[in-house]
Amino acid sequence: MRTLLNIDVAVEIMSKRIKIELKEEKLGLVEALYRVSSRDVVSEIDIPFFDRSYVDGYAVRAEDTYGASESNPIVLKVVGKAKPFSSGIVVNTGEAVKVYTGDPLPRGADAVVMLEDVVENGDKIYVLKSLGRYTNVAVRGEDISRGKVLISRGTLIEPKHLAALATVGINEVFVYEKIRICIICTGSEVVEPGAGDAEAILGRGLVFNSTGVLITSYLKTLGFVEPIYMGIVGDNQGDIASLVSKAVDLCHVIVLTGGAGPSDQDMAIDVVESLGGEIVVRGIAMRPGRPSSAGILNNKPIYMLSGFPVAAFLGLKYFVLPSIEKALGLHIPRKIVVAKLVKRVANVAGYTSFVRVKIHKCSRYLCVEPIAAMGSGTISTILDSDGILIVPANVEGFDKGDFVEVELI
Amino acid sequence: MRTLLNIDVAVEIMSKRIKIELKEEKLGLVEALYRVSSRDVVSEIDIPFFDRSYVDGYAVRAEDTYGASESNPIVLKVVGKAKPFSSGIVVNTGEAVKVYTGDPLPRGADAVVMLEDVVENGDKIYVLKSLGRYTNVAVRGEDISRGKVLISRGTLIEPKHLAALATVGINEVFVYEKIRICIICTGSEVVEPGAGDAEAILGRGLVFNSTGVLITSYLKTLGFVEPIYMGIVGDNQGDIASLVSKAVDLCHVIVLTGGAGPSDQDMAIDVVESLGGEIVVRGIAMRPGRPSSAGILNNKPIYMLSGFPVAAFLGLKYFVLPSIEKALGLHIPRKIVVAKLVKRVANVAGYTSFVRVKIHKCSRYLCVEPIAAMGSGTISTILDSDGILIVPANVEGFDKGDFVEVELI
Repeated sequence: MRTLLNIDVAVEIMSKRIKIELKEEKLGLVEALYRVSSRDVVSEIDIPFFDRSYVDGYAVRAEDTYGASESNPIVLKVVGKAKPFSSGIVVNTGEAVKVYTGDPLPRGADAVVMLEDVVENGDKIYVLKSLGRYTNVAVRGEDISRGKVLISRGTLIEPKHLAALATVGINEVFVYEKIRICIICTGSEVVEPGAGDAEAILGRGLVFNSTGVLITSYLKTLGFVEPIYMGIVGDNQGDIASLVSKAVDLCHVIVLTGGAGPSDQDMAIDVVESLGGEIVVRGIAMRPGRPSSAGILNNKPIYMLSGFPVAAFLGLKYFVLPSIEKALGLHIPRKIVVAKLVKRVANVAGYTSFVRVKIHKCSRYLCVEPIAAMGSGTISTILDSDGILIVPANVEGFDKGDFVEVELI
Repeated sequence: MRTLLNIDVAVEIMSKRIKIELKEEKLGLVEALYRVSSRDVVSEIDIPFFDRSYVDGYAVRAEDTYGASESNPIVLKVVGKAKPFSSGIVVNTGEAVKVYTGDPLPRGADAVVMLEDVVENGDKIYVLKSLGRYTNVAVRGEDISRGKVLISRGTLIEPKHLAALATVGINEVFVYEKIRICIICTGSEVVEPGAGDAEAILGRGLVFNSTGVLITSYLKTLGFVEPIYMGIVGDNQGDIASLVSKAVDLCHVIVLTGGAGPSDQDMAIDVVESLGGEIVVRGIAMRPGRPSSAGILNNKPIYMLSGFPVAAFLGLKYFVLPSIEKALGLHIPRKIVVAKLVKRVANVAGYTSFVRVKIHKCSRYLCVEPIAAMGSGTISTILDSDGILIVPANVEGFDKGDFVEVELI
């Protein structure tokens, strides 16, 4: 038996061999959603740009209010409104100016008394509260200070980043082109859903290709990837080689599913070698997903995954994507929860296990329930699951009651 | 002061008034990603369709192996391979048939002995282990049984659902058309990012519109919504009314930001009433987001949110979307974690607070750290946050050490 690589080692080895040159493009903000920034973006200005009021009320000089209280109201003269901004109004000693939330503070003022802390009476107000300097004031630059990095290179661009760019007046952002990933499914027994009467097709011993749609649609959820599904090809080395050659021209990355052994059917691996490619990873100590392999063909990374949907999905999520992200320096956030295990999960020595789990609220915590199933082809284990519990290769298992990390899917 | 509605009440009231008729469309699987199913989809077949092998090995009659062990191997005659399927091979007493993972079990066989539990010797195998019936066999229907609901009406379609549909041979699915949401930002002081030199624009007391891009891009992340951004309109009742009328023709839902009081500038509300609309919700006891209001105009729901980006975002996420989802019976999963609070969070009596938080791993748990900030316009509170902690109106606050629920954003 060949020694299988630990998954972290496999990711590391493959990432070092990947050379992908992504072009840059400049997009409008909403277009750039879920793309990856290709440059650091730094704010060139302070936000707020002026001291601004946090509340509706009156801009005052804080020292004018010292000692004010309900039993000792201090009277100030209202000399106008902060808006329009061009009025250039100034607050002198003994004066106040009406402001609304967000208004720039008029010159001279250094605090804002809230409406509920004054009694209004014509052109006078009675201040019922003593204010410190900058009370209810957003100080220049306190939200975004000049020089703050709003997005760093390699960051997945989320709505919050776009809002930050807009705030400082930026309406375009440099991003990487989408990573084109070609998907080829192999297997003479595999047919596309919709190809005919399901009972008749299954009755002939064929199976519908669920792996293709699972991989393609999952990649589509990542906005920075353009999945290109190239269809099914039978177990014929020449046919596979011909489609792989097309994919190498078209895509940055090629993913083959099926025919990846280790059994006596390592056809995908033979194809890559026959085309002059080099196999870099041949089998990973992961469950499911043991056949996961990878190589370099014409300077392009090519991955060979199980034909079974769940094993292929886990190979994609925990081997293919991490190795590409690492090679390119991308930071793609993951949604992780820590929760209490309701029953023991055993591991197979030396293997990293990817256990599909359900999550529910239980007493003070979230609880994690493993979904028992043996087969890597068992679609119900992901249909019913909320997340993936990773049991590292050096861990014998987790006990009931242990707190474990689960990635939400 | 007007009494503000509790947010749950506001969602409930508004949801009962919403009448949106969404058309159905039939899409291919990958196209249907993140759309909402408009019908239940039930499997008409069993998966696996036959008893199948879980492993590489030999299909046998379990009773032939009774008593087998390493010290008492039992010999069986290999009579062929399970494939091609059309061979119609049968396993009789004393016989075995080579199978690979996923192969249908040949007639007569009811268990599979794994390769590592046999010694192969020409056309004979020595079985080293006693097997029970269905050992290493996926029994017909154990993954998906005929009649199982694969997607129920109103479900957000994720990759796992598409894989399940493909598995049973389905390649098209009925979904609702996208919910068109028109977004109009109001405010004479608001300009689009990119409109000119940022310092000069901010220096005139204007602000860049970050609310529009935040709302639009967040809605775009929901695949079942088509956001239509209609731009900025100044604080002029006639201009706002004219754009709102266009939006009513174009969209299922209208969202206005800015000018929603409660201050002395309830212009959005005046516009809706002037066009013959009815205000259903006027202000919500939420922090931030107090101005959040809603009404019905020409049978369309129209929402009025704060002009400040964070308040508008929270109003959208916790008022607008839940009321629409409830009205339409949609089930949109949320990513919730339960984690330990590292410092006290106080609440204002009667208000539901939405606290932006950072999450990090700490000892056994995840820990939650509130991001301190006063202003609802403070973009850094969402730029730096991982999630939202909701403090319900009837809770005075949470103590340090409490386990709290946080929605990941």
